[in-house]
Amino acid sequence: MLSIPIVKLHQSVPPRMSEKLSLDDVPFTQSEMELEARDKRRLELFVDAVFAIAITLLGLGFVAPVVQHSNGALVGSLMGIAPKFAGYFLAFALVGIMLNNHWRQFQNIAYANWMLYFINLLFLSFVVLVPFATAVWTTYPDTTVGVLIFHSIIFIAGVILYANWTYVRWRPYLLKKDITGQTLKEIAYRDASFPPASALAIALAFISPALSNIAYLLIVVMMAMAFRQRRRRRASHG
Amino acid sequence: MLSIPIVKLHQSVPPRMSEKLSLDDVPFTQSEMELEARDKRRLELFVDAVFAIAITLLGLGFVAPVVQHSNGALVGSLMGIAPKFAGYFLAFALVGIMLNNHWRQFQNIAYANWMLYFINLLFLSFVVLVPFATAVWTTYPDTTVGVLIFHSIIFIAGVILYANWTYVRWRPYLLKKDITGQTLKEIAYRDASFPPASALAIALAFISPALSNIAYLLIVVMMAMAFRQRRRRRASHG
Amino acid sequence: MLSIPIVKLHQSVPPRMSEKLSLDDVPFTQSEMELEARDKRRLELFVDAVFAIAITLLGLGFVAPVVQHSNGALVGSLMGIAPKFAGYFLAFALVGIMLNNHWRQFQNIAYANWMLYFINLLFLSFVVLVPFATAVWTTYPDTTVGVLIFHSIIFIAGVILYANWTYVRWRPYLLKKDITGQTLKEIAYRDASFPPASALAIALAFISPALSNIAYLLIVVMMAMAFRQRRRRRASHG
Amino acid sequence: MLSIPIVKLHQSVPPRMSEKLSLDDVPFTQSEMELEARDKRRLELFVDAVFAIAITLLGLGFVAPVVQHSNGALVGSLMGIAPKFAGYFLAFALVGIMLNNHWRQFQNIAYANWMLYFINLLFLSFVVLVPFATAVWTTYPDTTVGVLIFHSIIFIAGVILYANWTYVRWRPYLLKKDITGQTLKEIAYRDASFPPASALAIALAFISPALSNIAYLLIVVMMAMAFRQRRRRRASHG
Repeated sequence: MLSIPIVKLHQSVPPRMSEKLSLDDVPFTQSEMELEARDKRRLELFVDAVFAIAITLLGLGFVAPVVQHSNGALVGSLMGIAPKFAGYFLAFALVGIMLNNHWRQFQNIAYANWMLYFINLLFLSFVVLVPFATAVWTTYPDTTVGVLIFHSIIFIAGVILYANWTYVRWRPYLLKKDITGQTLKEIAYRDASFPPASALAIALAFISPALSNIAYLLIVVMMAMAFRQRRRRRASHG
Repeated sequence: MLSIPIVKLHQSVPPRMSEKLSLDDVPFTQSEMELEARDKRRLELFVDAVFAIAITLLGLGFVAPVVQHSNGALVGSLMGIAPKFAGYFLAFALVGIMLNNHWRQFQNIAYANWMLYFINLLFLSFVVLVPFATAVWTTYPDTTVGVLIFHSIIFIAGVILYANWTYVRWRPYLLKKDITGQTLKEIAYRDASFPPASALAIALAFISPALSNIAYLLIVVMMAMAFRQRRRRRASHG
Repeated sequence: MLSIPIVKLHQSVPPRMSEKLSLDDVPFTQSEMELEARDKRRLELFVDAVFAIAITLLGLGFVAPVVQHSNGALVGSLMGIAPKFAGYFLAFALVGIMLNNHWRQFQNIAYANWMLYFINLLFLSFVVLVPFATAVWTTYPDTTVGVLIFHSIIFIAGVILYANWTYVRWRPYLLKKDITGQTLKEIAYRDASFPPASALAIALAFISPALSNIAYLLIVVMMAMAFRQRRRRRASHG
Repeated sequence: MLSIPIVKLHQSVPPRMSEKLSLDDVPFTQSEMELEARDKRRLELFVDAVFAIAITLLGLGFVAPVVQHSNGALVGSLMGIAPKFAGYFLAFALVGIMLNNHWRQFQNIAYANWMLYFINLLFLSFVVLVPFATAVWTTYPDTTVGVLIFHSIIFIAGVILYANWTYVRWRPYLLKKDITGQTLKEIAYRDASFPPASALAIALAFISPALSNIAYLLIVVMMAMAFRQRRRRRASHG
């Protein structure tokens, strides 16, 4: 461990941070840096790219209808796909909030390693299925099975994202220095909204498939609560 | 507020800028930086990625025709989709100008926060619908409803992009330091071209769907006027 | 012009370069930087993203055949699309060489402005059409019209890329400092291979559509010649 | 060679590294840097973008079924595409491991040149075919030809990625400074898992197409062995 050439480390860490690194900060040998570390920036961009494509493919669900060239026929056919629009915006919002949670995690992460890469890859393998799941759901919104696929994929993705943060919390050397314990807890709290919300949606799907989506309001409620609490804490400090 | 460790801030700001930051510049506590700030660069790249995919999907509107293997048959079938090419280039140009406006805003923005992230996400949720709207429009260019969808989506996206700049203007700590008031105003002026142009297009769609696109010339006119004014101001200073 | 705050400039230029900037180097006022300059890095990434999507969409031309579950039937059906594979690799290579030319230009460019943005946008609007053009070409390789679309799009894209470099050459302040005149000329020479090669392909398409692709060998020949000349010059200097 | 202006070099190398460069480090003339060098970061991002799109297109293989609106019908139809899900996750994992190998290589590479660009382009031209190959494979998992296409593409991509590292190893000036010989060897060892595994899959395809995928376990075994060996070496050093 004593043999880490500090010069080497500089090359793979974020520019600013590098100045503050000392041998004690990073529990990696040079060889481990070369083989096990992964470019954190590259991982962020890769995740973003897959999310960008996945949400854009959500839009592929809409195809120009084949009807008569009249306003009436067109309005009628568009009314028919109106529920698809509702589904599109809900899926877009959920995926967007999930990505927001990912960003919050990664702006507090300083290093990535191969394990973090594979956790994120697993995460993405479910994100990629969201357009398909949304298509099934908006086509069969009246069936339990049709909506279950969507809820299950959101559930699994939510659990993996939570696991990602847990993995990082256990390895403080992957985190930015001087991160507050309050932040560590709050990020966990906010990422914890997806699993129960989608689990509730799964349960509701057996009672009323059409109403099961209401469960996702839980995510918004938890976001709002975190926001209010933060405001209050800030006010009491001011 | 007094407890912001300046070291922490350095990590999340653009490298060069960081040197000039002092405690007065950024009205964030460390905890707020960790939870509410968002990587500005990552946001730019995400927006660019979605735009890149959306404009490339515009090209998916063209499918190799199924006709006889003769020049005549092929020319005939391509003539049939000629209006689609006009629509493709118009949509491409509009989306491109919109992205140009986004770039102009963000090269003057220094920090992003979660709110900016969600404003941009909402913006993207309409950008993603452009390929669909273009397909409907070029398939039903002779109907009011067919062209209205396209104009409405451009209108909403334009309003959100304008709102994005308004949000930032109200929060100077998100902007690069020493930005001139003239720049703040001019960016608002240039972003203001989309809403009236597409509103005009919506109005024209009720009179003549086919001619409603002429309204977008207003954007070009406003761009040219801004450009000329700038030239004149520069000449008078030289 | 005398009023450019150097601090401001630093924020929008590549980190390393910034140290060497003085008021004489950049003929922009602060206000022009804020409104007319564009993030060069963001432009590169946007171009790359569109290219990445366009070449990946080339692969969408291949669809799993619907035949009997037997090796014989599958081989037969795959043989039928063999020419499509040849077309795929040729289009991939041409688009790849074009992107390589773009990279060569941009690694010598230091700044981008709005005009460069729009030249590149125009360039991309034809790159995006390559998958469609390739599909038409590989479906109708025996017709003049079928192959002409592909050749025309390569021709136009090649001309715009050449124009991009010409635009930059006329504005030395957009280039990296101390760039050699030899480099300026050689980049122009190498980018000059696409227009004549595709023009030749267009001419050949009227004689023999199937053989018109041979014209693209001209690009390879010109690349090899540039390479050999470079080797020779280097040897004579050693 | 003696005429390299060090100032120029700084502009095209990673910020931190640049400080340690001297004329001896980089065997390029200024003109060669301007014409032959390629932006390493841009190459990484381009590769990542193509991978991101390719794996997302894997998800396009799933289309909402057209059946009766009943749970039974939906479950039946989803059961029918269950093998497709197995194929999806296997392809996703293989492509993900391949990208992981690419990242490991590039975090030890400091510079890219045009040759590296074209090796990677060739690599990507096969990666792009993976969604098609996966579709053929999961549609005809019971035929030798159907699975052979997939195995062959993985084989070719694996060989090119290995060749990429071999190319770099022969040109130490492209590598980061002070890289350990152990790292050079281990990366080669880990990248060596794809060609034999897919070659074995090709051989097995002639015996049992359905079981040929078992061959890819070899990659996991080789990864685990490398991991264990590393643990042991570390323990013996501690």
